[in-house]
Amino acid sequence: MTDTAAATLDRSEATAFRSIDSATGQPVGEPFAVHGPADVDAACAAAEAAFDTYRAIDREARAAFLEKIGEEIMAIGEPLIEAAMRESGLPRARLEGERGRTVGQLKLFAGVVRRGAYLGLRIDPAMPDRQPLPRPDLRLRMIPLGPVAVFGASNFPLAFSTAGGDTASALAAGCPVVVKGHPAHPQTGELVAGAIRRAVAASGLPEGVFGHLTGPSNELGAALVRDPRIQAVGFTGSRGGGLALVQIAQGRKVPIPVYAEMSSINPVVLMPEALKARGAALGTAFVASLTMGAGQFCTNPGLLLAIEGEGLDAFVNAAREALPGAAAQTMLTKGIHQAYDQGVEALAGHNHVETIARGQVGEGVAQGQAAFFATTAAEFLADDTLGHEVFGASSLLVRCQSAEELAQVLSAAEGQLTATIQMDEGDTDLAARLIPILERKAGRILANGWPTGVEVAHAMVHGGPFPATSDGRTTSVGSMAIDRFLRPVSYQNLSAALLPAELRDDAQGTPRLIDGQPA
Amino acid sequence: MTDTAAATLDRSEATAFRSIDSATGQPVGEPFAVHGPADVDAACAAAEAAFDTYRAIDREARAAFLEKIGEEIMAIGEPLIEAAMRESGLPRARLEGERGRTVGQLKLFAGVVRRGAYLGLRIDPAMPDRQPLPRPDLRLRMIPLGPVAVFGASNFPLAFSTAGGDTASALAAGCPVVVKGHPAHPQTGELVAGAIRRAVAASGLPEGVFGHLTGPSNELGAALVRDPRIQAVGFTGSRGGGLALVQIAQGRKVPIPVYAEMSSINPVVLMPEALKARGAALGTAFVASLTMGAGQFCTNPGLLLAIEGEGLDAFVNAAREALPGAAAQTMLTKGIHQAYDQGVEALAGHNHVETIARGQVGEGVAQGQAAFFATTAAEFLADDTLGHEVFGASSLLVRCQSAEELAQVLSAAEGQLTATIQMDEGDTDLAARLIPILERKAGRILANGWPTGVEVAHAMVHGGPFPATSDGRTTSVGSMAIDRFLRPVSYQNLSAALLPAELRDDAQGTPRLIDGQPA
Repeated sequence: MTDTAAATLDRSEATAFRSIDSATGQPVGEPFAVHGPADVDAACAAAEAAFDTYRAIDREARAAFLEKIGEEIMAIGEPLIEAAMRESGLPRARLEGERGRTVGQLKLFAGVVRRGAYLGLRIDPAMPDRQPLPRPDLRLRMIPLGPVAVFGASNFPLAFSTAGGDTASALAAGCPVVVKGHPAHPQTGELVAGAIRRAVAASGLPEGVFGHLTGPSNELGAALVRDPRIQAVGFTGSRGGGLALVQIAQGRKVPIPVYAEMSSINPVVLMPEALKARGAALGTAFVASLTMGAGQFCTNPGLLLAIEGEGLDAFVNAAREALPGAAAQTMLTKGIHQAYDQGVEALAGHNHVETIARGQVGEGVAQGQAAFFATTAAEFLADDTLGHEVFGASSLLVRCQSAEELAQVLSAAEGQLTATIQMDEGDTDLAARLIPILERKAGRILANGWPTGVEVAHAMVHGGPFPATSDGRTTSVGSMAIDRFLRPVSYQNLSAALLPAELRDDAQGTPRLIDGQPA
Repeated sequence: MTDTAAATLDRSEATAFRSIDSATGQPVGEPFAVHGPADVDAACAAAEAAFDTYRAIDREARAAFLEKIGEEIMAIGEPLIEAAMRESGLPRARLEGERGRTVGQLKLFAGVVRRGAYLGLRIDPAMPDRQPLPRPDLRLRMIPLGPVAVFGASNFPLAFSTAGGDTASALAAGCPVVVKGHPAHPQTGELVAGAIRRAVAASGLPEGVFGHLTGPSNELGAALVRDPRIQAVGFTGSRGGGLALVQIAQGRKVPIPVYAEMSSINPVVLMPEALKARGAALGTAFVASLTMGAGQFCTNPGLLLAIEGEGLDAFVNAAREALPGAAAQTMLTKGIHQAYDQGVEALAGHNHVETIARGQVGEGVAQGQAAFFATTAAEFLADDTLGHEVFGASSLLVRCQSAEELAQVLSAAEGQLTATIQMDEGDTDLAARLIPILERKAGRILANGWPTGVEVAHAMVHGGPFPATSDGRTTSVGSMAIDRFLRPVSYQNLSAALLPAELRDDAQGTPRLIDGQPA
C-alpha cells in the first residue's frame, strides 16, 4: 500500500468516525467509538493481567479456543460478508473465500499448538561425572513474548485483519492480542471482534486475552505501540505506516520487535524460451493476474523483466489487447484510489516511461483503471522512483538488452515478498544463474505461476528482505509465523516441581531434542 | 562491560596502536595495522564476493572447515596462550580452558551443520486436484543472511572474540565473517585470525570468507556496520557500544539485525529456607563466584535479593568474613579497571548503600578490589542507578521485608542474561510463584548454582530481554545461535533442476517436515 493512503485516513481524525461504503464514498450506519489514551491503557492493562494465565493454560485448551474463534466467525453468517462487501468493495466470492482462509488459519494454528513442535523443546541431561567440570542439567523451551499489538490491512478485511494471521499466530503462541482495528472496515472489524470476545468468554479465559481499539487516527496506533506492556507488533500496510511504527518501537525505553509487511512490487522475469513458446498466452495471463481484486494484493505483479525480442513483442501485444477489456473495479478506499491515480499519473507522465495500455475507465467514486507501462533497464537503474510500489492494478515492464542487464536490474531491486520466473525447460541454465540473486531479494520464489496466491501452509514464506518487510527473518503467513512471538528460555538444574510440564522427564507427546537429537 | 571502558579505548585513537601488557599497562611488541575506510571496503567486497560460493559448498565441506579452524588454533600452541595472558591478565588455566571451549564451539557447529536440522526443511507437496483451487508445490529452507560483522569481547579473548561463538555460528550458517578485532588483545586476535586464514586456504575457500580489521577506534567498527554489504552484526560488550551499533544499523538505507550482548547484573534470589539451612555456606560460595576471573563475566552475580532474617544475617556474615581474603586480580584493561573503580566508588558513596566488605587492595596498575554492598528494596526501587552494571567483582544485596517486596524488586528489574534461585525444598512454593516473573526477565533460570558458568550446549540460552541483549529472541552461546544468521525462503513449483539439493524429492539424510510432520 502507499503512504498517501495512510495519510488520507489520518486526515479523517477530526471528522465523525463512521463506516464508509466503498462504492458510494458515503458514510453508513451508526458511528463507532473513537478510542483514546485511557482505552489504550485499559486494553494493555487487561492484556498484561491476562498474560500469565493465558500462557499457562494447556495446549489443548488453547487450540480449542482458536477453533472456537473460527466457529464464532462462521456463526455471524451473512451480516459479516455484507459488511465486508460494503466496506471494502470486494466481491462476495472473494470475501467468502477470505473468510474460509481466516477460519482455516485458526485451524492450522490449532494444529500447530497441539503438536507443540513450536516449543522447540531441548534437553541436555546433566553429566555429574564430566571432567574437569560436571555438566548441569539444561532444558529449553520457547515462551510467548507478552501482549502483542496487531494492525490489520485494508485489502484483506478478514484474513489480514482483526482475526487474521497475526492475531491467530500471536494467540497460538500464548500472547494476548490488542488489535488496532482498521478504520476502512470498522463494521467488519467489530463483528469479528465480537466473535473473538464470545470465544474468549466461552473458553473461560480472562477478557484481556483480546482487546479491540477503534478510531480513525494514526495516533491511536502509536499510543498502543508506545505502551510498555506491548511486547511485539504485527502490521500489514504502507511503507510509511510500517516505518513509523518501527521508529516508535525502537524509541521505547525497552525496544520491541515490529513485524511490518510493507511494500513489494514482486518482479516477474519472463524468460526468453518461455516468451518464444507462449509469449501471447503469458501476456493474457499476466493481465488477469494484474487486475484480480483491482490489483490490491501485496503480491501483485508490479514489475516485469524481459529481454527484448519477438517473444516479448508477442507478450506486449497480447497484454495491449487484453487490458482495455479489463473492467474498472471499486478500490478499497477513496484514499487508496487517489494514491493509485497519483502513482499511475506519475508513471504515465514520466519522460522515459511508455504507456502500453490502460484498462476501462471507472464510473464509481473510487474505481481503479488498470495500467501497464514499459521502460528500459538503463532508465530503471537510473531512477529509483520507478521501483516504488503503486498499490493497485499497475505494472511496469523493464526491457533489457541482455541476460546480464536483466541480472543487473534484479540485483539493484529492493527486497521483495516474491520473485517469479516464467520459464521453459530451455531457460533452466539462465534461471539457475538468477536464483541466487532472487534468494537474496525475496521470501518466495515461484516458477510458472503468478505471485498473487499466498497459500496458507507449512512451507509458505510471506515475508522478505527490507522494505518488503521490516524483518526478513520471518513470515506472516503459514505455520512458521508462530515463531515471531516466541523467545527461548533455558532452565538449569530446576527440580521437576519447578520445570514446565513439557520439560519434565516423564512428559510425553511433544517433540524434543535430547543432546541435540530427536527423541 | 561499561560505557566508560569503551570510551577509554576510543581515546587511544590518536596514539600508536600497540598491544598493552595488562599487568604493567605498558605497550609491548610491534605496532598493529590501523585499518581505515579502504580496508573496510576491501574486506566487505571480498566477503560479498565469497558469499555465493561459500554458501553453496556442501555441508560436509563446511563442517570440515570449522573443524580445521579449531585444529589451526590448537596448532599455534604456547604463543597463543602467552599472548592472551599478557594482553588480558587472565591466568593460564582459564585461557587454556577458554581455548578448549573455542575449539569445542567450532566442533559443535560442525555437528550442527552435518545434521542439517538448522535448514528447517519443509515440503508441502502439490495437490493438483484440490478444490476450489489446486495447491502448489511449496518447499522451504533457511538460507544465510550474507556477510556478518563480528565484534569480540575483551573478557573472553578467545571464546567470544575472533573465532568465538559469533564467528563460529555465522560461518556455520554459511555467512562470510568480517571481524573487527578487539583492541585490548590485538596480538591474540591476529594469531587467531591467521589460524582462520590458514583454514580458509587449506579448505580451498575464497579468501573473503574471513576478514579481520584491526585498529583502536570505534569509527572503524561503525564504518563496518554501515557498509551495505554487511547483513547482520554480532557484538559482545558494553551497553553504550551495543546501542551505538544498533543505531547505526537501524539508520542504514536497509536496516540489519544487530545481536548485541550488553549488560546484565544477573539477580540471585536467596530463598528463606535455603538461607536458614545453609546461609553461611552460601555466603562463602557467593564470594568465590563473585571474585572468579576478577568478576569479569557477563553473568557475574551483581545483584542479590533476600528477605531479612537470621539466615540472611549468616549469609552476610560469612561473605563479610570471606571477601577480605579475596586477592586483587589484574583486570582486562586500564579502562575497565577505571570504570570498575568509578562504579564501586559511586556505590560506596551512595547515601543509602552500606558497604558490607571489600577484597584485598591490589598492587598492580589495574588490579580490581572486590566489593559487596547492601541496600533496601525501597531504596533500590527508588533509584534506577542502583540496578546498573558495575563490570567486575562488585555486587549489591537488596534486603527485602517480604516475599511480596522481593517479587516487586524482580518485576522492576531490567532484562537479564540469567536469574538464579538458591533454594531448598521448602522454598518450592515461593519459587514457583517467582518463576513466571523470572521467565520474563531472563534468558536462563538456574537453581542452586551460580550463573557464571555458561555451558556450550543445545539447550543453552545466553541471551535475554533488553538491555541484557538487543534481541531477546536469540542466544549467542549454544547450537541455537546459528538461527540468528538465517532467513527462510520458500520455493513454489520449482523444477528439481532448480531446487536446492536438500529440497529435492530424492534428497536423504536431512530432517524435513512433509505437510508439517517429521519425515
